[in-house]
Amino acid sequence: MSREFTAAMVVIGNEILSGRTQDKNINYVACKLVEIGVRLREVRIVPDVESEIISTVRELKSKHDYVFTSGGIGPTHDDITAQCVAKACNTVLEQNKDAYDILLDYYGIEELTDARLRMAQIPVGGALILNPVSAAPGFQIDNVYVMAGVPKIMQAMMDHVAMHLDGGTVIQSRTVETRLRESVIARDLGDIQEKYQSVDVGSYPYFKDGQLGVNIVLRSDDGNLLSRAEQDVIEMVDRLSE
Amino acid sequence: MSREFTAAMVVIGNEILSGRTQDKNINYVACKLVEIGVRLREVRIVPDVESEIISTVRELKSKHDYVFTSGGIGPTHDDITAQCVAKACNTVLEQNKDAYDILLDYYGIEELTDARLRMAQIPVGGALILNPVSAAPGFQIDNVYVMAGVPKIMQAMMDHVAMHLDGGTVIQSRTVETRLRESVIARDLGDIQEKYQSVDVGSYPYFKDGQLGVNIVLRSDDGNLLSRAEQDVIEMVDRLSE
Repeated sequence: MSREFTAAMVVIGNEILSGRTQDKNINYVACKLVEIGVRLREVRIVPDVESEIISTVRELKSKHDYVFTSGGIGPTHDDITAQCVAKACNTVLEQNKDAYDILLDYYGIEELTDARLRMAQIPVGGALILNPVSAAPGFQIDNVYVMAGVPKIMQAMMDHVAMHLDGGTVIQSRTVETRLRESVIARDLGDIQEKYQSVDVGSYPYFKDGQLGVNIVLRSDDGNLLSRAEQDVIEMVDRLSE
Repeated sequence: MSREFTAAMVVIGNEILSGRTQDKNINYVACKLVEIGVRLREVRIVPDVESEIISTVRELKSKHDYVFTSGGIGPTHDDITAQCVAKACNTVLEQNKDAYDILLDYYGIEELTDARLRMAQIPVGGALILNPVSAAPGFQIDNVYVMAGVPKIMQAMMDHVAMHLDGGTVIQSRTVETRLRESVIARDLGDIQEKYQSVDVGSYPYFKDGQLGVNIVLRSDDGNLLSRAEQDVIEMVDRLSE
């Protein structure tokens, strides 16, 4: 059995914490990682404060195979992610030649202002993550992947990054939906979890059209086991619905 | 000047980390806290793992005035938030009389199964947070507010909780939108941030209709200062648009 690969995500964003913006990047990263067999184990949303970004990245990069960040890599004064990640990785920023060439090509020499040149400041040893939308690249240093906050750009960067990551066995999932109440299925579902200990049995209630319902979600890297557990859940739902 | 009140949020949810569900609770809590003058300083999304929930709640409750949790308070085997929060607060669960009465009233004695009675297990010393949708209450213990994960229920609980929280001065915000690129406004916007050091000047690029634009967001608890800074931003945008 291949080893488990884990990841964490750091969303750098006062605009998320202030409620101004609804984050859309976490779900995209989560889905992408599932596809390639990497487990997203935690997410932190932190303010644009240097000390907090540094300590968070430092802690998570030592705990997980991969850390993904979104936000704070533009040209304005509040874009401090690159310098924070450099410090968390015990290195410094330098003008990256490839990043410079990308920006030169995109803006032309006349328009390559100091503000724009700031986006060519990449940690020493960093590898660029290309930005097909607006040129300014993200970067990878150590096991940290630094991406834009604008969803369209972040998604393009993540697609590119995901192609080159090592992952383990892909977790498969099966969902059984029912309008039975959670409290009706709780005991029998607990028994099924007991029976299939290596299957993660989750129960996620929802509220739709004025009624509660439950999505019962089974997850495992063993497709055969999953099918048997799913069959048990379906039989349970049928039995309790009578 | 009143002191600053800070908060953290813990989202307990394998379903968010697996990408199955897009979180909707963080933004709701963030907006609600802004209204009452409490600063949401960090958010963590953690898996349904007892040790991680306990250590996260313990760390955050000592750092902030308030901690809000969402998810994991139902009747199924994977609902472990109550027991974890109890441990983080150095107490234990007991059958809460008021919670019992609520469940009894809702289900009737015949239908008050063991699974449902699990939802009356509240930490000793906890105060209930009422659930107008499906009866099973959340609770507050110490400075930790434990709420449901289903958005409709969480929102009702948060509305109720927010009415009774102490907050500081409400932060006001002004937004100036422009189709100028961030790199065009970066230098002058930095100067404005320098000039108004107690105003938080944020620059949030977006991508819409195939074009980039920026929302420049100013935040402060001082309305007069905010108006002056806003005027400077508007003049800057006009000047750079010529």
